[in-house]
Amino acid sequence: MQTNPDNHISACLLICCPDRPGIVAGVSAFLFQSGANILDASQHSTDPREGLFFMRMEFQVEAAQKHTLEKGFQEQVATPLQMEWQIRYSDQRKRMAIMVSAYDHCLMELLWRWKSGELQVDIPLVISNHPSLEKECTSLHIPFHYIPVTAATKEQQEAAAIRLLLEQQVDFIVLARYMQILSPNFVAQFPHRIINIHHSFLPAFAGARPYLNAYTRGVKLIGATAHYVTNELDEGPIIEQDVSRISHRHSVQDLVAIGRDTERLVLFRAVNAHINNRVIVHGNKTIVF
Amino acid sequence: MQTNPDNHISACLLICCPDRPGIVAGVSAFLFQSGANILDASQHSTDPREGLFFMRMEFQVEAAQKHTLEKGFQEQVATPLQMEWQIRYSDQRKRMAIMVSAYDHCLMELLWRWKSGELQVDIPLVISNHPSLEKECTSLHIPFHYIPVTAATKEQQEAAAIRLLLEQQVDFIVLARYMQILSPNFVAQFPHRIINIHHSFLPAFAGARPYLNAYTRGVKLIGATAHYVTNELDEGPIIEQDVSRISHRHSVQDLVAIGRDTERLVLFRAVNAHINNRVIVHGNKTIVF
Amino acid sequence: MQTNPDNHISACLLICCPDRPGIVAGVSAFLFQSGANILDASQHSTDPREGLFFMRMEFQVEAAQKHTLEKGFQEQVATPLQMEWQIRYSDQRKRMAIMVSAYDHCLMELLWRWKSGELQVDIPLVISNHPSLEKECTSLHIPFHYIPVTAATKEQQEAAAIRLLLEQQVDFIVLARYMQILSPNFVAQFPHRIINIHHSFLPAFAGARPYLNAYTRGVKLIGATAHYVTNELDEGPIIEQDVSRISHRHSVQDLVAIGRDTERLVLFRAVNAHINNRVIVHGNKTIVF
Amino acid sequence: MQTNPDNHISACLLICCPDRPGIVAGVSAFLFQSGANILDASQHSTDPREGLFFMRMEFQVEAAQKHTLEKGFQEQVATPLQMEWQIRYSDQRKRMAIMVSAYDHCLMELLWRWKSGELQVDIPLVISNHPSLEKECTSLHIPFHYIPVTAATKEQQEAAAIRLLLEQQVDFIVLARYMQILSPNFVAQFPHRIINIHHSFLPAFAGARPYLNAYTRGVKLIGATAHYVTNELDEGPIIEQDVSRISHRHSVQDLVAIGRDTERLVLFRAVNAHINNRVIVHGNKTIVF
Repeated sequence: MQTNPDNHISACLLICCPDRPGIVAGVSAFLFQSGANILDASQHSTDPREGLFFMRMEFQVEAAQKHTLEKGFQEQVATPLQMEWQIRYSDQRKRMAIMVSAYDHCLMELLWRWKSGELQVDIPLVISNHPSLEKECTSLHIPFHYIPVTAATKEQQEAAAIRLLLEQQVDFIVLARYMQILSPNFVAQFPHRIINIHHSFLPAFAGARPYLNAYTRGVKLIGATAHYVTNELDEGPIIEQDVSRISHRHSVQDLVAIGRDTERLVLFRAVNAHINNRVIVHGNKTIVF
Repeated sequence: MQTNPDNHISACLLICCPDRPGIVAGVSAFLFQSGANILDASQHSTDPREGLFFMRMEFQVEAAQKHTLEKGFQEQVATPLQMEWQIRYSDQRKRMAIMVSAYDHCLMELLWRWKSGELQVDIPLVISNHPSLEKECTSLHIPFHYIPVTAATKEQQEAAAIRLLLEQQVDFIVLARYMQILSPNFVAQFPHRIINIHHSFLPAFAGARPYLNAYTRGVKLIGATAHYVTNELDEGPIIEQDVSRISHRHSVQDLVAIGRDTERLVLFRAVNAHINNRVIVHGNKTIVF
Repeated sequence: MQTNPDNHISACLLICCPDRPGIVAGVSAFLFQSGANILDASQHSTDPREGLFFMRMEFQVEAAQKHTLEKGFQEQVATPLQMEWQIRYSDQRKRMAIMVSAYDHCLMELLWRWKSGELQVDIPLVISNHPSLEKECTSLHIPFHYIPVTAATKEQQEAAAIRLLLEQQVDFIVLARYMQILSPNFVAQFPHRIINIHHSFLPAFAGARPYLNAYTRGVKLIGATAHYVTNELDEGPIIEQDVSRISHRHSVQDLVAIGRDTERLVLFRAVNAHINNRVIVHGNKTIVF
Repeated sequence: MQTNPDNHISACLLICCPDRPGIVAGVSAFLFQSGANILDASQHSTDPREGLFFMRMEFQVEAAQKHTLEKGFQEQVATPLQMEWQIRYSDQRKRMAIMVSAYDHCLMELLWRWKSGELQVDIPLVISNHPSLEKECTSLHIPFHYIPVTAATKEQQEAAAIRLLLEQQVDFIVLARYMQILSPNFVAQFPHRIINIHHSFLPAFAGARPYLNAYTRGVKLIGATAHYVTNELDEGPIIEQDVSRISHRHSVQDLVAIGRDTERLVLFRAVNAHINNRVIVHGNKTIVF
């Protein structure tokens, strides 16, 4: 999404409603009458007869029109078609928090892409249970919060983290190899807004030590999975996965090194899709437009 | 595209027109008013300001409505929006001819997928300049025409082939490793309706002996390219490409064997996209929805 | 491995022994003194200090030398180094049986590659619990044995199958989507000599209905795994795996179709590695040279 | 390669000689008698009859033995077998210079992997014709030399660069998107010791603006190629290549962004192979063990 001159901005509409004839016509007619120009559209139906219909539309609209547009859309389109919807505008960058432990590769990948302009997002803070990556963040003027966690302090430290995240009004959180399991209370604060990178091809090797387990089983490919966090460990809706080829020549340490590259790329792709409003969660699955 | 009960069929609309606000609204409103239910849609604009707009829409419609629908679409939508368009229906299978020389792998791949129902197409004939693959075709009840070609007979033999192809009302032709260069006259009869598989990653190694040239250059990946045939050899619009990894251990013969698998898959994907009306040619490039 | 003129043949030596200095020197000196010329060699050690050493050596040797060579190797090399070993010669093609049910894609892939000379193997028989693929085999002059299996007849029918396989002196068996679970007794007859293709990326989705389970979980890649059969279902040593990308657009039926291509390729690669003596089983893992 | 206790180091031997029986036996017997323990070996022959034989052997040896070992190897093995050879030891890290212009992604990738210990190399200096990446280097305590180049100053500035590189005794140079063509004089100083990353799948789109040309041609995959620099632009021996999938949806700018990821990975793999003595140049091709 790019802002263009003469007070027009890009907007992205996501909708979900019961499938029935006339949805595309209804939405596109409304946008046309509102002076919006559709740039891109993708749609998906779980079943044209009794299923759910999902759509993502990118369009250009006058910045001043936002409020009128949304009000009209609710009345004329969303209510009649029983639609859940949201619109995001290109002049409102999302606010992304990163939580990380001691491994730096996923954090560095996100920061590097953010610095180069590839990730169109604001990063108001990084939270870590280790102090070691502070300089990597502060040298880019990103506030770094060291919040160590022990079994005894977990509840109060999570509360401190939540307080910071809410103060900073973050839109979503990326767990860039954050090695603590978040409590149900934490997860409930950010439903489908916490993205985790797990270092295996889920559902294979969920839980601890996936590279060791992959080595022991003798698989010929190792993978990484980016998913939204739910209260079932490593069971949330999958956004993106990829794999790399390995062989008997590779030690567990080699798997860790090879896997780092897959983790970095998979997490970046998932985060970028989320930032660009390309992901819709449906049940325990994702639609990635 | 699947036919469904109660006299409804699936239809696929492809359009191309100057981009401007209101196209999606216009098309979808017309289809809604005609009782059609949109199943899937993809669109692409070369530039929202002065570019071209392309769209593919799949919808269900009553079989009896075909003629009325097309007439109405031309008048109410296509003419006002300066649109080029076509509709294909699921009850009209495309007719595909295959031309082949002595290598059998691409032919066998297409026949196997056709036999298994994966390629939704009719195959009224196979033409070959070698007699060797006759049994492979006739055992599946596909007529096989042996039309040998020499420099002296090329013109008359091409004329014979064209006659057969027109008699059989073929929609498009697949060159499944057909080792003759078609004349401009032949190509002109089937514009953007001849699909060739070239055994390299074009534009690298155009022309003869691509595997030998790839071996000599010492590349680390070899590829295959499916493209529409034009009068510039190996220069037509590319539909699909893929590659396989090779190393110094592989001889030219190994490249030929490895490359066969890539050729089979790339050609299948291109042919399947063409059959499902997913390919639009624009200039010397393709949009593959 | 290729036979060459003047009575020389290719041979392939596989060894496994405790790692210690001098193994390569011992083996290569013996082969040199026996007039053999090493063509290729690969080695692997689980640990140079107390681990196991594995090696594959391809060499040329006079056909008449076979017996002398093996006797000398045992005495001068294998016994002193506590080696397990085997030699296979290029003039002894392996004998491969195929067991299949009703899906034809894996069978057809193997037969097509065998017919084209890519799989250097003899196929003395195909066994199926369905009658439907008989013609595909007999048209290539491969005997087809229809051995239906029910819960009641399983024991006696397996016995019949084993009798046939032993009569035909098969070296190994490929389960090309054979939808029956072999009994421990059957498996025990052919240790590490039965190759199965499972239609998932193991250990994910072991057991029945992997494509349905992959669809339900919402993974973004689906895979296939070729492995040796053991008495633990889908738990045997993995030979080869690969994956294909899918999205929310794909139905279970689409996964089945996309997965077929991965299954074909993965099974072929595993079978070809086995034929060329490139696979060594170690514990529940494989070394694939 | 890892150093291990008790004064043993790892060593890597690369050889090239006319193929004939007895080479492996000769080399391995010599190493065994010298007290070396072979850890890994790879070999390749262009033709067992009159071809060239290449081998890479990794072994452990007492550090104090280096000189004796090399002297003995020359006399007892290399001279009789007409061998070219070199040995590198794990206690002598290679010295790598990086030359870069304004794009930072390849430089950052190499520095990040070096910092994390993945690239076992020393980086005594970075040379750039732009001042912009100085801080990225100096913050890691790597000296940064700004050597701007114009048509008028090219000769003297290249001389200055060569002086620095020789002073620092660099083993090889990586052009991490260095946008100047090196003169034949420069290249001659470092034969097969300058690695360049070209942002296309060579030989396609050699020369300037490969992403624009790929976009214009309408290819469906874009690639990157790491190769040794020779005096023929983009024609040197290829070390590594890879590709990424693109579609009609991607602008030239998108290709640049997608391509960056491929460039980073391909360059890293090539540099790592070079560092680990895995690359042998033969004619205009490479053997990558």
